[in-house]
Amino acid sequence: MNVELIAVGTEILMGNIVNTNSAFLAAQCAKYGLSCLYQSVVGDNAERIEEQLRIAISRSDMVIMCGGLGPTKDDMTKEVAAKVMEQELVLYEASLESIAAYFAQRKIEMTANNNKQALLPKDGIILTNNNGTAPGCIMEKNGKSVILLPGPPNELIPMWKESVVPYVEDKIHATIYSKLVKISGVSESKIATMIADLIDNQSNPTIATYAKVNEVHIRVSAKAEDESAAKKLVKPIVKELKNRFGNYVYTTDEDTTLEKSVVDLLIGNDLTVGTVESCTGGLLAGRLINVPGVSDAFKSGLITYSNKAKRKFLGVKKSTIEKYSAVSAETAEEMVRGLHGINKADVIVATTGYAGPDGGSDDKPVGLVYIGCYVCGKIQVREYRFKGNRSKVRDSAVAAALEFMRECILEYYSEKTFGSNDR
Amino acid sequence: MNVELIAVGTEILMGNIVNTNSAFLAAQCAKYGLSCLYQSVVGDNAERIEEQLRIAISRSDMVIMCGGLGPTKDDMTKEVAAKVMEQELVLYEASLESIAAYFAQRKIEMTANNNKQALLPKDGIILTNNNGTAPGCIMEKNGKSVILLPGPPNELIPMWKESVVPYVEDKIHATIYSKLVKISGVSESKIATMIADLIDNQSNPTIATYAKVNEVHIRVSAKAEDESAAKKLVKPIVKELKNRFGNYVYTTDEDTTLEKSVVDLLIGNDLTVGTVESCTGGLLAGRLINVPGVSDAFKSGLITYSNKAKRKFLGVKKSTIEKYSAVSAETAEEMVRGLHGINKADVIVATTGYAGPDGGSDDKPVGLVYIGCYVCGKIQVREYRFKGNRSKVRDSAVAAALEFMRECILEYYSEKTFGSNDR
Repeated sequence: MNVELIAVGTEILMGNIVNTNSAFLAAQCAKYGLSCLYQSVVGDNAERIEEQLRIAISRSDMVIMCGGLGPTKDDMTKEVAAKVMEQELVLYEASLESIAAYFAQRKIEMTANNNKQALLPKDGIILTNNNGTAPGCIMEKNGKSVILLPGPPNELIPMWKESVVPYVEDKIHATIYSKLVKISGVSESKIATMIADLIDNQSNPTIATYAKVNEVHIRVSAKAEDESAAKKLVKPIVKELKNRFGNYVYTTDEDTTLEKSVVDLLIGNDLTVGTVESCTGGLLAGRLINVPGVSDAFKSGLITYSNKAKRKFLGVKKSTIEKYSAVSAETAEEMVRGLHGINKADVIVATTGYAGPDGGSDDKPVGLVYIGCYVCGKIQVREYRFKGNRSKVRDSAVAAALEFMRECILEYYSEKTFGSNDR
Repeated sequence: MNVELIAVGTEILMGNIVNTNSAFLAAQCAKYGLSCLYQSVVGDNAERIEEQLRIAISRSDMVIMCGGLGPTKDDMTKEVAAKVMEQELVLYEASLESIAAYFAQRKIEMTANNNKQALLPKDGIILTNNNGTAPGCIMEKNGKSVILLPGPPNELIPMWKESVVPYVEDKIHATIYSKLVKISGVSESKIATMIADLIDNQSNPTIATYAKVNEVHIRVSAKAEDESAAKKLVKPIVKELKNRFGNYVYTTDEDTTLEKSVVDLLIGNDLTVGTVESCTGGLLAGRLINVPGVSDAFKSGLITYSNKAKRKFLGVKKSTIEKYSAVSAETAEEMVRGLHGINKADVIVATTGYAGPDGGSDDKPVGLVYIGCYVCGKIQVREYRFKGNRSKVRDSAVAAALEFMRECILEYYSEKTFGSNDR
């Protein structure tokens, strides 16, 4: 089934916002086996929306439009789509009541123009909006569908999951089940090589890789008559991926981030944690603290960007910095010991490196980072060489530090190996 | 002049990457007075690229395509565009030499398929790529232009600025000059009200606003026969905006971020700085340390997320936390004093708040944040109420802290007011 996405909104056309909705919808289409061949963006202009929709519906089985469902005159996606799909818009009392309830709950006065949002296609399928005022809808004609979704991502995403996915599954007479295998600590090219045979032989389930900052996500999706049959197809591939990548697979749960997997590991083992950062300057603690509930584990963090602060707060020796420089395994180790002396956390992680643009030398170039990790008595230090600008080096170092923490904690608790591959 | 953007790349169609190139190009088109009425995305498929390009060229004066200029068989944008524009591709020796030089400089072996990248339209305009191997090009036919740019943003952006902007200015027989007025600390809706008269009366220069996290950027762009005439048109509007928003305008320099403006202020006044973070948990220090050269100013930072850490490291009183809670002006003030006692920095900033999803109460809801700022002897604390999820509350708090630091430092050094408006 061919699908086309049309995002409606002058703010995208003007470059005011980035079109993340289309990226979300495109990834979802891939997940559900829908071939998305075109994406487009048009402004809030009836004539051009109509033109674009007519082109799309002529060449695709399904058109997903987002944006332009608001209460103002500028919002005209629904009106134009109804015209193209030859549907009459009528007032849906139930939708009007939900909109009124939405305002009442938030103690905001509902204005008359919100009534417009309850005008919906007479023969359409109405998609309830539990997170905003604009209902979505689906119109069908000659075996083709146009799906209208609201523009705000916090309304679009739940509506997609709650209402559109079941519709799509019904259309394709199949259930799609997929798992996301998230890997950290193995390079994208290495992963590509290691799963080339699986990729070459894929049909159902399909296997798709997504590169993130120092992570790769592999989506395994299967199509079957029901969920249990689809699950059966996905399971052996996920198992095979786990075998190949060992503990580098940090989760197969869609909503678990790398930092959450680390915090879960800390809390699950009753471990406290402390961070001491030079080049990452707070970003590592910042990511850990993005996990709700981290307060049970996080003892304290220090940002010692200057050599003076490293010496004063952590007791890093002057001779260590002079002999090995502040960016060295030796300094990283003394930073770890220094913070442990202060807060006695079970796990301590330290970063020191050259993020650029200045600093560094031929010998120790920009991108060189040392990460030290202490877990219950044992310190390990690892050297990394990252590429990119200051911001990229710092983000990579944070991701690497999280991954290294996982490795060290898992190593401490078990003899499980981290896959058989080198890093 | 009507412009249309076509991004070519299966990775965008699959939702693997977000289409930031189109956002960049769209904002640039707005800046240069080009009406961008459509954007689209197609995969690496000759037939569909051709179809999309024919539609685009039929309804627009200029089509800007990006992606698909690489050396592999999948890269076919140039071949398809040459067919549509009826141009012959010939080998450009100069381009071949640049590509060879690019590889030689990086000590990488050049493969035969890179020759393909030096095949360029015989009657086209060649756009040199100083940051990669794929040259861009411009083809013209019947007064219409197709501009081909490489996909990687670090190649596309410089090529746009160096080569396409002069071409566009030549086309529109004018020079465009623009200034970006960056404002922090005033809400978007307040700004909209305060510049409504300017927006209503705009023609040349044009005025466009862009909302960022706790910031609003206003772009003032003028069109004139030469740069000096265009500058003359922009100057009075920028002056008027500065008058209206006073010191809330933190820069009119395109490349200066809010954190850079704060670090410049610190270094310019020989001030040292320290951070002590609870809810922002390192992100504030992380943003300050993203500014190269910050080491001259940054003394040290502490992350005291738990009450215990606030008491132990900063000496926040047990009675203060019990009476006012850890999220209070009183705690923020004691956090500031605590770090000052440790590192004696000239400027200290502290954050404490409920980022959610847990914590908070009717009285002190999620989103409530106190920021304390000390500048050379004087402490001020301000209360904020932010909306959104955990991550949004934290990002907003960081932006607000940076802005508050600016205010406090400027207040200390001068009697300049922060505009006449309330916040």
